[in-house]
Amino acid sequence: MSLQTQYDPKNIFAKILSGEIPSAKVYEDARILSFMDAFPQTKGHTLVIPKVKACNLFDIPSEHLQNLIAQTQKIGRAVRDALEPDGIRLMQFNGEAAGQTVFHIHFHIIPAWSEAAPRKHASGEMADINELKDLAARIKAKL
Amino acid sequence: MSLQTQYDPKNIFAKILSGEIPSAKVYEDARILSFMDAFPQTKGHTLVIPKVKACNLFDIPSEHLQNLIAQTQKIGRAVRDALEPDGIRLMQFNGEAAGQTVFHIHFHIIPAWSEAAPRKHASGEMADINELKDLAARIKAKL
Repeated sequence: MSLQTQYDPKNIFAKILSGEIPSAKVYEDARILSFMDAFPQTKGHTLVIPKVKACNLFDIPSEHLQNLIAQTQKIGRAVRDALEPDGIRLMQFNGEAAGQTVFHIHFHIIPAWSEAAPRKHASGEMADINELKDLAARIKAKL
Repeated sequence: MSLQTQYDPKNIFAKILSGEIPSAKVYEDARILSFMDAFPQTKGHTLVIPKVKACNLFDIPSEHLQNLIAQTQKIGRAVRDALEPDGIRLMQFNGEAAGQTVFHIHFHIIPAWSEAAPRKHASGEMADINELKDLAARIKAKL
């Protein structure tokens, strides 16, 4: 079933949370982690994930979801201030049919520029880690 | 400026909130309103808006944003239970460059089916109001 909520503890974000897989971190506290998407749709594509084990919108406890969006707002403002895009999209996908590729709930913060079309989600083009780290540092500086 | 937060009290969602323009309502309380998108990207495309005057993610008070996402989760579950899509996308656009067309903050709940591609956002095809009212009633029944 596509909208399943059976949490796989070996998903890639679980490994990023445990430190097993590196990431370009923007922000971290006891409850959430924010880092650059390794397959960015646009420059500055940032993710925000909770530390609670939840697959999607349907199994995350409301209190964690509320904290997640409050932090996403703060980080979204920092993305805006650091990169000055013309717009910002928030996206949150549930189920493969909706484009979800990692089954640990996450909000996408995707900057938009008037002149550029975003890349397709998970298009397969991995970003350079040093570029991501530089972007993460610029966003972090605005938090 | 595209990411402006100068609230226009005559925007179409303000008129829906005041009752000046009708909508196919799913849920309403003192703080939020949920109704069917009149230009649905897929069947069951539902909107959730706060009653506070905010243009986007950047000027909505955190407390209202947290309530908005908590309600969006509840309504998202009702959309899932009523229509049984394969997936659900949450989207929230900030600025024209990001696809925002109404400058009153709103979350899109967009059902996804494995076999169907979503319509382009604001493609111009208006849905039949009776169809929307029927969908609203089906979702409401699951709340």
